[in-house]
Amino acid sequence: MGEPILVTEVGPRDGLQMSHSIMPTQVKIRWIEAMAKAGVKEIEVGSFVPPKLVPQMADTAEIVEASLGIPNLHVIALVPNLKGAQRAYECGAHAVIVPVSVSEAHSRANTRKGSLDQVEEVRHIVDWARTQDRPMKVDAGCATAFGCSIDGDVPESRVVEVATALAEAGVDSMALADTVGYGNPAQVRRLVRAVRAAVGTKLKRLHLHDTMGLGIANALVGLEEGIRCFDSALGGLGGCPFAPGASGNIVTEDLVFMLESMGFDTEIDLDALLKAREILQGGIPEETLLGNVARAGIPPTYRNAA
Amino acid sequence: MGEPILVTEVGPRDGLQMSHSIMPTQVKIRWIEAMAKAGVKEIEVGSFVPPKLVPQMADTAEIVEASLGIPNLHVIALVPNLKGAQRAYECGAHAVIVPVSVSEAHSRANTRKGSLDQVEEVRHIVDWARTQDRPMKVDAGCATAFGCSIDGDVPESRVVEVATALAEAGVDSMALADTVGYGNPAQVRRLVRAVRAAVGTKLKRLHLHDTMGLGIANALVGLEEGIRCFDSALGGLGGCPFAPGASGNIVTEDLVFMLESMGFDTEIDLDALLKAREILQGGIPEETLLGNVARAGIPPTYRNAA
Repeated sequence: MGEPILVTEVGPRDGLQMSHSIMPTQVKIRWIEAMAKAGVKEIEVGSFVPPKLVPQMADTAEIVEASLGIPNLHVIALVPNLKGAQRAYECGAHAVIVPVSVSEAHSRANTRKGSLDQVEEVRHIVDWARTQDRPMKVDAGCATAFGCSIDGDVPESRVVEVATALAEAGVDSMALADTVGYGNPAQVRRLVRAVRAAVGTKLKRLHLHDTMGLGIANALVGLEEGIRCFDSALGGLGGCPFAPGASGNIVTEDLVFMLESMGFDTEIDLDALLKAREILQGGIPEETLLGNVARAGIPPTYRNAA
Repeated sequence: MGEPILVTEVGPRDGLQMSHSIMPTQVKIRWIEAMAKAGVKEIEVGSFVPPKLVPQMADTAEIVEASLGIPNLHVIALVPNLKGAQRAYECGAHAVIVPVSVSEAHSRANTRKGSLDQVEEVRHIVDWARTQDRPMKVDAGCATAFGCSIDGDVPESRVVEVATALAEAGVDSMALADTVGYGNPAQVRRLVRAVRAAVGTKLKRLHLHDTMGLGIANALVGLEEGIRCFDSALGGLGGCPFAPGASGNIVTEDLVFMLESMGFDTEIDLDALLKAREILQGGIPEETLLGNVARAGIPPTYRNAA
């Protein structure tokens, strides 16, 4: 058994929000079930955002409730604010992830608030959640931490400042998110070290996009720096409606292939994961799925191959 | 100025050999000229192999001669045997690269010889080249060093054995080649260390394919281990006619983007390199070019951006 790595599937949220068509609710549920059956232990299943803005997420309450019936699945919903967090709690979500854009321009486009005002919103969510009967984790995602398609460069000192404020606001953990996919391996190494120095193991996760083809290499550096949780999306779906030029998340299948080949243990069955692509493709037939493992097939040297 | 990295373009050889159509000689020359003008300092321009087997390479003599007229370009030809090396020498090539497959099955398919017999062929080439008036470098490529689509796993001890034999045969330098693209970062690290321990700096180069989506991550690990020369192909062309399932080389544009973003110095102008894709695509209009940088465009945060 290798060292465990948590691969969090974000396709039902980050992937589908960019889809041109809307995946039917029952297909979403079958897709989430298939991924959980393949061994995916944590899925960001949707977001509680205004359906007018992101109609693909209008059924998130129903998706959360169905996902809670899947054994051993940790169910996460993205929420932009306290109201969303309260809805997620009512539906029974195990955790919420709240985006906080480090870039001011992206923060205003995404949440209509500046970065530090959004940290205050996170603080309200944390404070509210602590008064509830049932525990619900509150995680934060430091969006555009590696650059922004509107603001360009994002100073590393600013990322550390926002991360520090989030830790102080009491989040359970946080992610560094390369929302637009401009990050490079040297930058990932520097930033993981700087944020770890400021907030320690509260920095838990990397959320990487593959815009420039460096997503998997950036994940590798995170791994080398001790990160053990990674977001990814089946078929490399994804993007950000408020980040022009961004493209998809790193491909779950390719990430799992790399991790397992290197001797890490994701507990994910790659064959079964590839089969779940069929459900995904069936639900959004006009979208192009990415992924090298799917295209080339699992090679005979794969350590988990029969 | 960052630390220099040598990016060797292998598209005119490894890329075009897999193309369904044959690029006209004049287009090949314009393409090579455009890449050299963009700052590419070393190009594998073709191979001296039987035109019946690889008709795309039938004009290699002419391509080598035209390439020699390009200022500051190091001109390499692939040769499978002494006869090919002699033709390369007659044409004036600065260096030859001789493939030696570590996998016996691939070796027999590729050169009709076992691995160690092919090392003997390399020895003949080295001995012959040393007796000539003009110096011509003799490099070797340890093909299928990270796995083989015919033989499956390739023992690392066998790679070290072949590399040691090549060093003893007197090659100027050698590459480890992931001919079919099955390698993973942990394997690249182990193998670079093992071969470096056996042959020192004679191991100069990595030749990586992106079959499973790990090519750039594998290059990153090579970089971390001190490798400073990488093969790649514009548009991610490539494969191997005797390695079923192999797909293209790592994408030159994406590799250059990563290296420059990390602060290394390739001396390659990424804008000019992207423009050279147009000539390439014009010469083989039915082939699909890959590459994330070309698809997404160079981001505003790129350090060489105006």
